[in-house]
Amino acid sequence: MLKKIKSGQIVYGTCITSTSPTWPAIALRAGLDFVFLDTEHIPLERMEIARMCQTFRAMGIAPIVRIPSPDPYRACQMMDAGAEGIVAPYLERPDQIEELVGALKYRPLKGELLDKVLANQDGIDPPLKQYLDKWNEGNVCIANIESVPALNRLEELLAVRGLDAVFIGPHDLSISLGLPEQYDHPVFEDAVKKIIRIARQNNLAVGIHFSESPERQIRWMKEGINLIIHSSDLALFSQRLQSDMNAIKEAAGVTGHQSDNSGNVV
Amino acid sequence: MLKKIKSGQIVYGTCITSTSPTWPAIALRAGLDFVFLDTEHIPLERMEIARMCQTFRAMGIAPIVRIPSPDPYRACQMMDAGAEGIVAPYLERPDQIEELVGALKYRPLKGELLDKVLANQDGIDPPLKQYLDKWNEGNVCIANIESVPALNRLEELLAVRGLDAVFIGPHDLSISLGLPEQYDHPVFEDAVKKIIRIARQNNLAVGIHFSESPERQIRWMKEGINLIIHSSDLALFSQRLQSDMNAIKEAAGVTGHQSDNSGNVV
Amino acid sequence: MLKKIKSGQIVYGTCITSTSPTWPAIALRAGLDFVFLDTEHIPLERMEIARMCQTFRAMGIAPIVRIPSPDPYRACQMMDAGAEGIVAPYLERPDQIEELVGALKYRPLKGELLDKVLANQDGIDPPLKQYLDKWNEGNVCIANIESVPALNRLEELLAVRGLDAVFIGPHDLSISLGLPEQYDHPVFEDAVKKIIRIARQNNLAVGIHFSESPERQIRWMKEGINLIIHSSDLALFSQRLQSDMNAIKEAAGVTGHQSDNSGNVV
Amino acid sequence: MLKKIKSGQIVYGTCITSTSPTWPAIALRAGLDFVFLDTEHIPLERMEIARMCQTFRAMGIAPIVRIPSPDPYRACQMMDAGAEGIVAPYLERPDQIEELVGALKYRPLKGELLDKVLANQDGIDPPLKQYLDKWNEGNVCIANIESVPALNRLEELLAVRGLDAVFIGPHDLSISLGLPEQYDHPVFEDAVKKIIRIARQNNLAVGIHFSESPERQIRWMKEGINLIIHSSDLALFSQRLQSDMNAIKEAAGVTGHQSDNSGNVV
Amino acid sequence: MLKKIKSGQIVYGTCITSTSPTWPAIALRAGLDFVFLDTEHIPLERMEIARMCQTFRAMGIAPIVRIPSPDPYRACQMMDAGAEGIVAPYLERPDQIEELVGALKYRPLKGELLDKVLANQDGIDPPLKQYLDKWNEGNVCIANIESVPALNRLEELLAVRGLDAVFIGPHDLSISLGLPEQYDHPVFEDAVKKIIRIARQNNLAVGIHFSESPERQIRWMKEGINLIIHSSDLALFSQRLQSDMNAIKEAAGVTGHQSDNSGNVV
Amino acid sequence: MLKKIKSGQIVYGTCITSTSPTWPAIALRAGLDFVFLDTEHIPLERMEIARMCQTFRAMGIAPIVRIPSPDPYRACQMMDAGAEGIVAPYLERPDQIEELVGALKYRPLKGELLDKVLANQDGIDPPLKQYLDKWNEGNVCIANIESVPALNRLEELLAVRGLDAVFIGPHDLSISLGLPEQYDHPVFEDAVKKIIRIARQNNLAVGIHFSESPERQIRWMKEGINLIIHSSDLALFSQRLQSDMNAIKEAAGVTGHQSDNSGNVV
Repeated sequence: MLKKIKSGQIVYGTCITSTSPTWPAIALRAGLDFVFLDTEHIPLERMEIARMCQTFRAMGIAPIVRIPSPDPYRACQMMDAGAEGIVAPYLERPDQIEELVGALKYRPLKGELLDKVLANQDGIDPPLKQYLDKWNEGNVCIANIESVPALNRLEELLAVRGLDAVFIGPHDLSISLGLPEQYDHPVFEDAVKKIIRIARQNNLAVGIHFSESPERQIRWMKEGINLIIHSSDLALFSQRLQSDMNAIKEAAGVTGHQSDNSGNVV
Repeated sequence: MLKKIKSGQIVYGTCITSTSPTWPAIALRAGLDFVFLDTEHIPLERMEIARMCQTFRAMGIAPIVRIPSPDPYRACQMMDAGAEGIVAPYLERPDQIEELVGALKYRPLKGELLDKVLANQDGIDPPLKQYLDKWNEGNVCIANIESVPALNRLEELLAVRGLDAVFIGPHDLSISLGLPEQYDHPVFEDAVKKIIRIARQNNLAVGIHFSESPERQIRWMKEGINLIIHSSDLALFSQRLQSDMNAIKEAAGVTGHQSDNSGNVV
Repeated sequence: MLKKIKSGQIVYGTCITSTSPTWPAIALRAGLDFVFLDTEHIPLERMEIARMCQTFRAMGIAPIVRIPSPDPYRACQMMDAGAEGIVAPYLERPDQIEELVGALKYRPLKGELLDKVLANQDGIDPPLKQYLDKWNEGNVCIANIESVPALNRLEELLAVRGLDAVFIGPHDLSISLGLPEQYDHPVFEDAVKKIIRIARQNNLAVGIHFSESPERQIRWMKEGINLIIHSSDLALFSQRLQSDMNAIKEAAGVTGHQSDNSGNVV
Repeated sequence: MLKKIKSGQIVYGTCITSTSPTWPAIALRAGLDFVFLDTEHIPLERMEIARMCQTFRAMGIAPIVRIPSPDPYRACQMMDAGAEGIVAPYLERPDQIEELVGALKYRPLKGELLDKVLANQDGIDPPLKQYLDKWNEGNVCIANIESVPALNRLEELLAVRGLDAVFIGPHDLSISLGLPEQYDHPVFEDAVKKIIRIARQNNLAVGIHFSESPERQIRWMKEGINLIIHSSDLALFSQRLQSDMNAIKEAAGVTGHQSDNSGNVV
Repeated sequence: MLKKIKSGQIVYGTCITSTSPTWPAIALRAGLDFVFLDTEHIPLERMEIARMCQTFRAMGIAPIVRIPSPDPYRACQMMDAGAEGIVAPYLERPDQIEELVGALKYRPLKGELLDKVLANQDGIDPPLKQYLDKWNEGNVCIANIESVPALNRLEELLAVRGLDAVFIGPHDLSISLGLPEQYDHPVFEDAVKKIIRIARQNNLAVGIHFSESPERQIRWMKEGINLIIHSSDLALFSQRLQSDMNAIKEAAGVTGHQSDNSGNVV
Repeated sequence: MLKKIKSGQIVYGTCITSTSPTWPAIALRAGLDFVFLDTEHIPLERMEIARMCQTFRAMGIAPIVRIPSPDPYRACQMMDAGAEGIVAPYLERPDQIEELVGALKYRPLKGELLDKVLANQDGIDPPLKQYLDKWNEGNVCIANIESVPALNRLEELLAVRGLDAVFIGPHDLSISLGLPEQYDHPVFEDAVKKIIRIARQNNLAVGIHFSESPERQIRWMKEGINLIIHSSDLALFSQRLQSDMNAIKEAAGVTGHQSDNSGNVV
């Protein structure tokens, strides 16, 4: 996956929340490049993540795990469990991104020596550098940008060396902007465009995670999005179930059940 | 659920294969009356079934479990785990249905005395009968009819006292007819119509489990189907994922991934 | 445990249904000799049983597992999982007990040769006998006697060589007698006394599983019961919770919640 | 639950530690308003908590989860898993309570903007406020007060806006007072009375978690406790098992096993 | 795997009993063609088997599952869970092998029609045959031959059409011969040689499962074994741990712990 | 275990990563004193750790758990789950060791009072001290020393009162020294010798965790190591599987698969 995004290719994925052993085959048939495993909002722990990562990796689908908080220890646990990349949520400060880079690009170096290296990424001995590069090969380091304070510091944040990509969390961003779920509001759109622009200037891949119709992904793809993180098993199953059931009940003369998308936010 | 189908109401459900704790809320939002939990083809064991049954029952959604073979011991285990009804697969002989009735309507009676009761359902002492009726209140006894030998003995099979409903397995039935997956073939359609007709003569509810577009359910509903067992989480998620991804990739200029429904058969 | 019951000692146990890792320490503190793990009514599968058996055995508490049906394959699976003894439910015929003896006393012998050995337990070669005796050392073979047909054949059933003990299932027995839950009815009491008498004549241990007050165990202990299988975690927790809550609510002036013991039957 | 405690009603619950699928029905039969799920001392992770929360909520029993440390990220994970309220343990500083309020009352707001809001809870835009109020409706925010430093700062701690209730941890409190397990010591009693008094002045509900006889709850209920968090499945099962077994063994002439309540502390 | 054994190639595997998510990578590094997942003796249920099968298949390692008894329903469940082949234990009669062939080569055909087809494997309609062949493509049907009665009927057993391979269970075979664990006894060796000879005459692959030193596999490979099912994770871990610990303790001057291989039998 | 190491005895253990219920018996047969359960690198959560700890403790084998980061809350959770000792990874500062001592030797004291006690371990009231000593009896407090900054502060670190033992992490240490995996390099060897020397001066037990041949343990045992933490189930199984498979394939004329030890690092 890292190679693909570094070469500017579009990669495709969805969020998988179910541990069902029949799910990975569905992702494979749908031609996905990656799956997004969200441990921030979904109750998945290390054992479940490890099992899912092993299966997806064996299928050639990159498992990208979001950790619940910007905690480098948690990032390392997920990499040990088989993740190919980490998303840290709600980053607002450069040191949070640096810590993530430390976990993704410089392990098994830790502690005070790692702090020194992060303060000066060029100051590392070549033989050790080579060892660490091999150890961390292919790891994808992704920052969730989803708040006004992050927007205000965007140039600084996205310039942190070692960062590979940006995920925009539209729900949190809309709330931080004081425009909850108003994804068509011009202020919201400007914010997204700004993130795309600065991400691209820094040669970072960028994606936005919507759980609605594919049109939203297509619209933003045209604006430069190249990480297509589209919806989730939860939302896709729920949307199709409701639309099918509504059609059947209507045919049966039952007054239609209201469509309800609450709970689809990840 | 038993009351609803006895009064001729249409009931709505889908097949749930994932144990994800976020799933039941989706079923609730979609207004389902029941869920079909298939332990014949899906690797779900007693512990998982028990957890799912507890949650669905607490939500007022009836969990109906299919057992892997016509085994009354297995039926009892699933009832103890919290099922509200049992589907036994591929029934072809009246004694198989009687054994199922024994498990659903006469427990905790077992062994030789149960055999005697099943041979003569009127010969049971009234006080014991009353106790057993209360114990088994609301249990739904469902036969899978899905083969030519079953079709040939249909009057006899569906006349077994205690049976409440019939589930048609279209995939197995089409194969037994020598017409694999030819669901529009007139011979297949005649077979389905025959099952509906004789089920209704015996005052049994009847359903057919398709994992395709809602049009199939609607078409058969007009022919008299009143157990709407529509698709599965697996198929619904897969279908919507593929259609969304195809739309997105097309917009990106990627030649579309072929739609593939294999693996959706339950 | 086998040694203790063979020497006529009373052994004490309860039924454990929860897989909680904090439970075994409670059993240990209560001074139990064995625990009864019921896979007939409780949704516990091989993995859970294996984990529970390992821990209880390591504590010196014998795990005795009831299988869901008189199936020697299932008995072997539970022994492989770490059980120290097996209870087969609702036995009514000598061949069912013989099959259980085959699984508990003659494994790994199987198939046609085992059938031959069971037909003539003396006809086995001494060196092989010695090997099998060592392999099966300490295994406890227990029959559930809980029906009128079993009562009628009791001498024959309890004379099967290799059987070690009898568990009386009072609930099933009362139903088979047409006296559901009438545990003080003289016909019920006579049935229990008959089982105790013939068990003792055959030098078998005998127990009865009640989930009510300890007085019932004490009363039957005086009649000769020496396997004290008293209540279950489910019933004990429920009874104490209800009695404590009733006391608290009464003190708060809330009209007492009705005591309800349904669901305590195992 | 929030409504009930805000209106001054007494609510009743126990601590549930077992994940057994048969447990929730026991809680329902006992007429509980809430269950206390303790992830501080009991090895329960997100997946287990999510399953338990789904089932209890569907039954109308509020699941209240204690997190292992005062960590707002962990509080959010438990709310996402289905908790209706959070207890944070061993709080001693107002900022710890504010962070908890942030997680329970202002999500999905996070990061620097949340810090600003917590510093001035009135400074939030009305439309956003309305959105956040709806999102967090019914969430119950509970502080564990169980140490001398907390007692010393009690007025300040319990005045934090957004806090709904106080749980007293008697074991930790007795140790912090230098009076381990001396729950009848006047200094201990004065401390509890002080917490009750100040909680009530701030219109907060208040409870104390004992795992002993109901008399303790009743005694403190008379002093003003209105969150009855009585004992745990672990303690209730253990206490009843020991008392029943002691009665049986005594009748058998076995010298009684010593009653031992260690291990019942949660 | 089926192609390889049909073309006479040697295939290599071991028995995996642990569900640990880090295990499959070890099998991959060791260059295995298949893994043997034994549900006869090891407490693994459908959910665990399904997870293991998904991961091993994704890695290109064929999961071969042994079922606990010759039960075609169980065989189908394991195939649905992702197995690539089935071993049925302790087969002694041709109808047992035919039922296994029915489950592995003719599904989803079931019931009376399947019985008819098994009685006359040529009497099936070509279009249906083609459908079934595609459905069952690559499935490997394996019989455990491990008893004297099976030896006596070997020609008949191994001539059943649809059977692909034979697994010899040396432990059971030695017991059935009255020579427990005497794997070097000439009578035992003659029995193995006979099985190899007749298997090869029927163009079947053949393997023998030892959990000892590789020399045994090598010795029998030279006699014609081409399914190398060598040892198990359990035995390999245990043997290496004991030999390393003995070396270390000897160096420490501790008198060596006795090597003990009991418990390594699968 | 604490008694043994305090008296200077050598104790023997391995790292167990698999939750398989058949594993503990292997550890028992191998005569281990302790097992090392690593939650830093291995995806094991509280529920799995709790189950493993219960079983190992019941067998008289001490479960020693490594936590993922120097977090006293996590240490307490693992002690509550049944651990007999805790290893905290990559310690470089005295306050990190003090916090660990707080969690292992002074619980249930917490918060500000604990901080005070840690600042002055003699300033605690005798009756409370006695209570806490009993509560924490036998707990083993272990520091992972595996970096240059830790080496530089070694005297100070190992002098923290309450610390019982030191585990050397050779992999991390070699990287911190800029000598990745060069375990025979004189600079690496000098570092290990220094740790052994200062540990022994402070009367601490000391171990080093290699996953290679037993010779490394023996060599360092002669230098003073007395906690033998040798290899892991993962490495032992992998090494033996590869060596056996290589022998078999060589005999079959297959060009040997390269031995590969990557992935064995814990």
